[in-house]
Amino acid sequence: MPSISQKGNSMPQSPIRKLVPFAEAAKKNGTKVFHLNIGQPDIKTPQIALDAVKNNAIQVLSYARSEGSEEYRTKLANYYAKNDIHVAANNIIATTGGSEALLFTIGSITDPGDEIIIPEPFYANYNGFSTASGVKVVPVISKIEDNFALPAIEDFEKLITSKTKAILICNPGNPTGYLYSEAEIEKLKQVVLKHDLFLIADEVYREFTYDGEKHNSVMALGGLEQNAIMIDSVSKRYSMCGARIGCIVSKNEDFINTAIKFAQARLSPPTYALLASEAALDTPQSYFDEVIEEYQERRDTLIAELQKIDGVKVANPKGAFYCIAELPVKNSDDFAQWILEKFNHNNETVMVAPAGGFYSTEGEGKNQVRIAYVLNKTDLKRCVEILKIALEKYNS
Amino acid sequence: MPSISQKGNSMPQSPIRKLVPFAEAAKKNGTKVFHLNIGQPDIKTPQIALDAVKNNAIQVLSYARSEGSEEYRTKLANYYAKNDIHVAANNIIATTGGSEALLFTIGSITDPGDEIIIPEPFYANYNGFSTASGVKVVPVISKIEDNFALPAIEDFEKLITSKTKAILICNPGNPTGYLYSEAEIEKLKQVVLKHDLFLIADEVYREFTYDGEKHNSVMALGGLEQNAIMIDSVSKRYSMCGARIGCIVSKNEDFINTAIKFAQARLSPPTYALLASEAALDTPQSYFDEVIEEYQERRDTLIAELQKIDGVKVANPKGAFYCIAELPVKNSDDFAQWILEKFNHNNETVMVAPAGGFYSTEGEGKNQVRIAYVLNKTDLKRCVEILKIALEKYNS
Repeated sequence: MPSISQKGNSMPQSPIRKLVPFAEAAKKNGTKVFHLNIGQPDIKTPQIALDAVKNNAIQVLSYARSEGSEEYRTKLANYYAKNDIHVAANNIIATTGGSEALLFTIGSITDPGDEIIIPEPFYANYNGFSTASGVKVVPVISKIEDNFALPAIEDFEKLITSKTKAILICNPGNPTGYLYSEAEIEKLKQVVLKHDLFLIADEVYREFTYDGEKHNSVMALGGLEQNAIMIDSVSKRYSMCGARIGCIVSKNEDFINTAIKFAQARLSPPTYALLASEAALDTPQSYFDEVIEEYQERRDTLIAELQKIDGVKVANPKGAFYCIAELPVKNSDDFAQWILEKFNHNNETVMVAPAGGFYSTEGEGKNQVRIAYVLNKTDLKRCVEILKIALEKYNS
Repeated sequence: MPSISQKGNSMPQSPIRKLVPFAEAAKKNGTKVFHLNIGQPDIKTPQIALDAVKNNAIQVLSYARSEGSEEYRTKLANYYAKNDIHVAANNIIATTGGSEALLFTIGSITDPGDEIIIPEPFYANYNGFSTASGVKVVPVISKIEDNFALPAIEDFEKLITSKTKAILICNPGNPTGYLYSEAEIEKLKQVVLKHDLFLIADEVYREFTYDGEKHNSVMALGGLEQNAIMIDSVSKRYSMCGARIGCIVSKNEDFINTAIKFAQARLSPPTYALLASEAALDTPQSYFDEVIEEYQERRDTLIAELQKIDGVKVANPKGAFYCIAELPVKNSDDFAQWILEKFNHNNETVMVAPAGGFYSTEGEGKNQVRIAYVLNKTDLKRCVEILKIALEKYNS
């Protein structure tokens, strides 16, 4: 019998995958499960994007251009310009989601055995894309006590070897909600310039910043043109996770010309989704104003309610729609399973993502969970109430 | 300045990419360019699939299930059953095109440095997916004189080493149009069983077989359950290249469970395209009857006309919609560029794919081109007329 590769065996499981059967069983037993575990917002997709697909006149559903049409990339560049990111259409490659943007990026700049340094906790699928490319993730721990701010730059420098090809950040962060300051981005700039590394920034949550805080893109920094690679996606911005359109943005021509070869091999991003994504660029600012106000209120509600629970510590997120909460439990994997399998309150329970899966260092985040505030305020309040009652019962 | 990886540098260019600027320049100069160079059919997508997208009721464009919904995979299994392929929903993973199906397959069964044996000429992007995975393609030459039939099985055995993980075939073949016989598939079965290899069959052109010939799937063969992996796609079957929906099919549970981890890392195939693909499964047989009749007539027209040109040798394709033609030229790269750059006949010319890019062995296919018969018969006749006049001029 032929065998699976080491790579295949090393591919990580999604951190919530083993919880799915328990959630399904709970639902079968009539328990309502609130999903705080995934970044699937309940926010309506802009009507203009939905309409573009409903009113399409396609007769032959043809390949799109591998890097996305000139028109789409030009419109994207205009959108970026409004966000203080000045790029041209040929600095952009449209991809099948931010996922593919990361995969092409890693493929273009690393060989098997190379290393990428990532502040942890980090988006779990960075592990998957790295493993698929034979690349080793080298974590730098950021701490809940510091609100998950950038670790000391010396902590990065200690880890840089001849195998290090890039530093990867997510800004604002999934799963932390942390928003890097201009000074932090500047520190990263100095270290990547000093060591000739790429600085990859996953900025898919760019719009979602709170308390009037400003997002600082790696693309807006002078002097970083050859090092900066931005990963982007329409998924969260327009609540279009199912479109699967993202992009790579960089002013490094060698890099873009290399990444395009990966794009050509897979032929084309999905055509219908490109229609929706191009139309979405005309979404009025009022849409974002409402959505961001809604998320900020949800965040305030969630954090305030969580802080009322004895023994719960929570970082205050300034962006995205996640927070990491430390719970008064030894093992959040066990608790996340227990609350689905053995608990309900008036036939309701919650699903959260154990945070261990967001760390690369074994044993870290064992008492933490990630909570996505992708539900309305009433539901969020009820979720925290369920968590509170569950924690009391679990610990008694 | 940070540098591109060896992998990035080794990623092959699409064989037609360097011709694109010449085609664009010709068009700018008012020359009509007939595209025989790509597998983008002009056939209308089934109305039932187009309507499913136009009439969708999506309000929040959410992620689909990573492996595709149970319903979709069950309907797919029913479609396969009608094609003598008996599989269950859990033998199937929906992917973003056949491209991703190949990438996940190669990732699941190979490590960097491993080898996959492929009869050449082969679909050029097999090189891209292999390079992206750090895998070496080991070619076995099939010959135009033999109509590109399966090479002698001893030719495969000579190349098998401890690094060999799989044999990959495309059936019917792109770029050859060759349709493997039951006896040939049986020979491949024996060799993969003997050496514990996977047999990967790209069967995306399954429907397109001519002269009453039957398609023989690797999934229909008893005893090959642990070795056979089928790659499929809606792109050609329903003229839905831009959907980007494919799938992996295998009865090997370890393999499927591994490939699903790759699928989870990229979250979801495109949701709109899944709607279209699921609806397309209800396409009436009459659609295929008409399309296949059309392609068979096109093939007959193309081959008959090509054979009238002095010095042109052409294999007779029994499936797909491509043929490889040997031209009376030394260098088909040069000719393909010349016919765009320096030639037109009554302001019309043709773009063909030089066949060198479909071979892995340096120097093979230098006097061959691949012609896709994705245009109507009148246009095809005109294309061959242009080729004939161009060849006379080029050779004088």
